[in-house]
Amino acid sequence: MSEVSNPRLLYKSVPRGYPIPGENLIYDTSRTIDLENVPLNGGFLTKTLVVSPQPWLRERLRDPERISYSTPMRLGHTFVGFGLVKVIRSEDPDYPVGQYVVGMIPWEAYTVQPWDGKQISATGKLPAFTVDVDAMSMVKVAKHPTIPWSLFMGALGGSGQTAYMGLKEHADMKAGETIFVSTAAGSVGMMVVQLAKLAGLKVIATAGTDEKVNYVKNELGADVVFNYNTTSTSDVLQEHGPIDIYWDNVGGPTLEAAIENCNLHARIVACGYMSEYNDEDRYGVKTLSWIFKRRIHIHGIVTQDFRAKWTKQFFEEVPPLISSGKIKVKEEIVHGLENAATSWVDMLMGKNIGKSVVIVAEDD
Amino acid sequence: MSEVSNPRLLYKSVPRGYPIPGENLIYDTSRTIDLENVPLNGGFLTKTLVVSPQPWLRERLRDPERISYSTPMRLGHTFVGFGLVKVIRSEDPDYPVGQYVVGMIPWEAYTVQPWDGKQISATGKLPAFTVDVDAMSMVKVAKHPTIPWSLFMGALGGSGQTAYMGLKEHADMKAGETIFVSTAAGSVGMMVVQLAKLAGLKVIATAGTDEKVNYVKNELGADVVFNYNTTSTSDVLQEHGPIDIYWDNVGGPTLEAAIENCNLHARIVACGYMSEYNDEDRYGVKTLSWIFKRRIHIHGIVTQDFRAKWTKQFFEEVPPLISSGKIKVKEEIVHGLENAATSWVDMLMGKNIGKSVVIVAEDD
Repeated sequence: MSEVSNPRLLYKSVPRGYPIPGENLIYDTSRTIDLENVPLNGGFLTKTLVVSPQPWLRERLRDPERISYSTPMRLGHTFVGFGLVKVIRSEDPDYPVGQYVVGMIPWEAYTVQPWDGKQISATGKLPAFTVDVDAMSMVKVAKHPTIPWSLFMGALGGSGQTAYMGLKEHADMKAGETIFVSTAAGSVGMMVVQLAKLAGLKVIATAGTDEKVNYVKNELGADVVFNYNTTSTSDVLQEHGPIDIYWDNVGGPTLEAAIENCNLHARIVACGYMSEYNDEDRYGVKTLSWIFKRRIHIHGIVTQDFRAKWTKQFFEEVPPLISSGKIKVKEEIVHGLENAATSWVDMLMGKNIGKSVVIVAEDD
Repeated sequence: MSEVSNPRLLYKSVPRGYPIPGENLIYDTSRTIDLENVPLNGGFLTKTLVVSPQPWLRERLRDPERISYSTPMRLGHTFVGFGLVKVIRSEDPDYPVGQYVVGMIPWEAYTVQPWDGKQISATGKLPAFTVDVDAMSMVKVAKHPTIPWSLFMGALGGSGQTAYMGLKEHADMKAGETIFVSTAAGSVGMMVVQLAKLAGLKVIATAGTDEKVNYVKNELGADVVFNYNTTSTSDVLQEHGPIDIYWDNVGGPTLEAAIENCNLHARIVACGYMSEYNDEDRYGVKTLSWIFKRRIHIHGIVTQDFRAKWTKQFFEEVPPLISSGKIKVKEEIVHGLENAATSWVDMLMGKNIGKSVVIVAEDD
């Protein structure tokens, strides 16, 4: 059989500030692949169906010498992110043809698995506290009768799991308490808002545009919602707080205001620090003396720490909530790998409402 | 019987920066008391034996409108702090003559209990998250056969209990781990250092003078000790870290450096924020994105939250460790209420090594 095109997203250069599609990230159509004859060497060949633009990936596009919590992505190789693939040829009995798999994958049309181009540190050794993202395990999944694959990137994927497991593990939600949620129109935030409402909490939420504010208030049912670009976070929290729980996706000045408006024994779930993902100057948070004065607990979370403990309960509890409409989902779906870079950067800039998803190929 | 002098420490004016004895705090000898005839109204009369200069009291000497975690002390009234008293007359069967009691007391020679002059907020209502310090309960204590009363202000009092209970509740100490302790020559810090060594941890400790550094290294056995005034905290932690536990008494730049040198899943016990007790400009901590990246847990503590749970075990475990010399104690004892203000301010300035204690009267 003849070769077919195997387009990919190429990581070309380290971005300063927001990545620029076409400059830092190139849609590369120069490669081809012979699907029937490419050597598998005991592995398997996959077709990419869906990829998931996530904020934390920004961190990986950095100078490799700079240590951070995840390994840097390799320059000159294919961009790597979360996605769903389907096995179309196999020499590995664990991954038969037709099997669906989710995990960290190169963003390209077809991949020989295990894939090449994984991050290798210059010394051959990773720092003790760096997550070797490329080595994360691929997880087999089964098709759900009513829920589309795209939701496995969002409400049933990393975003939903982060919200559900982070709340279960550290928020100790009690009906009647008040929770404050940042980036409430984002894929994690919208799940947190709804899970908190289902648990009987008063929800104060913030987002960056009036459209998002309306969505979180009218569709998701948060009690108090404001646009942080036009309204002071401190003023809102002083009026509607104190807060018992803060779900923090952003850090910086928002975290500073939240801490100052915490109730005694408040819990802060530190899930992200979006205010610094794009090499912004680091903001100095001045309200930390309240941590001991009000006996606040702050918990940094990365979802992989919880998966073993909570995955079973998550998949028992959340899909029925989605099927029954008790949890609403919203997606920003784009089609085509050629649009993946723009979808990702738009999400970093906050242009999306709900979970950004890129459909690379239909599941035929 | 004739009246006797009833000297006291008077809270005269709100300090800016470090309090000034003789200006903000006056040793007032103008009052007398008739010990045999003063009306008790169903209460009891106590003689003050020992008082305890503690750092957190500085917070109470503020403009009353400024909300903080403890109620402000009342201007023009007697200074209030932790102390030990003995009942010398009584109309209350719960507090018979000869009974020893510890708690928050006016710093004066004799007191009719319950004492007058407690903080009353202007509105008659305290903010929800303010500890009504003056209302804290008085606790009856029995004399120990070998341990002197002064230690009930330190190693067996608030300092020791804070160290022991804070570590038990939140540090999850494991042999072989590394702990970093700030203000290690202070009354809480020295207990933390020793309890951590007994638990098999590597201890990195810091103090503000070479004399203190020598004490913590040679007498308390910490593994790495440095003077933060002459050595960079970051450099030491980079060389000897990463740290699994940070005991924070100071906040500010030290906390900033500690967070940046935390291991994965590190625990920070936030016990005080000494860098801001004296109205210094608030320092902005810039390293908070590491909290989620390294899944750090920060726990603000105030010891009263733990007393019900840990007091019994504390008094079973710690006095034998002190009697046997496995835990060393060090005190800065001064005699006479006239020296109490200076003792307290010296401690705030870091001039003490070990627990500052003021002996007001002998227990005859």
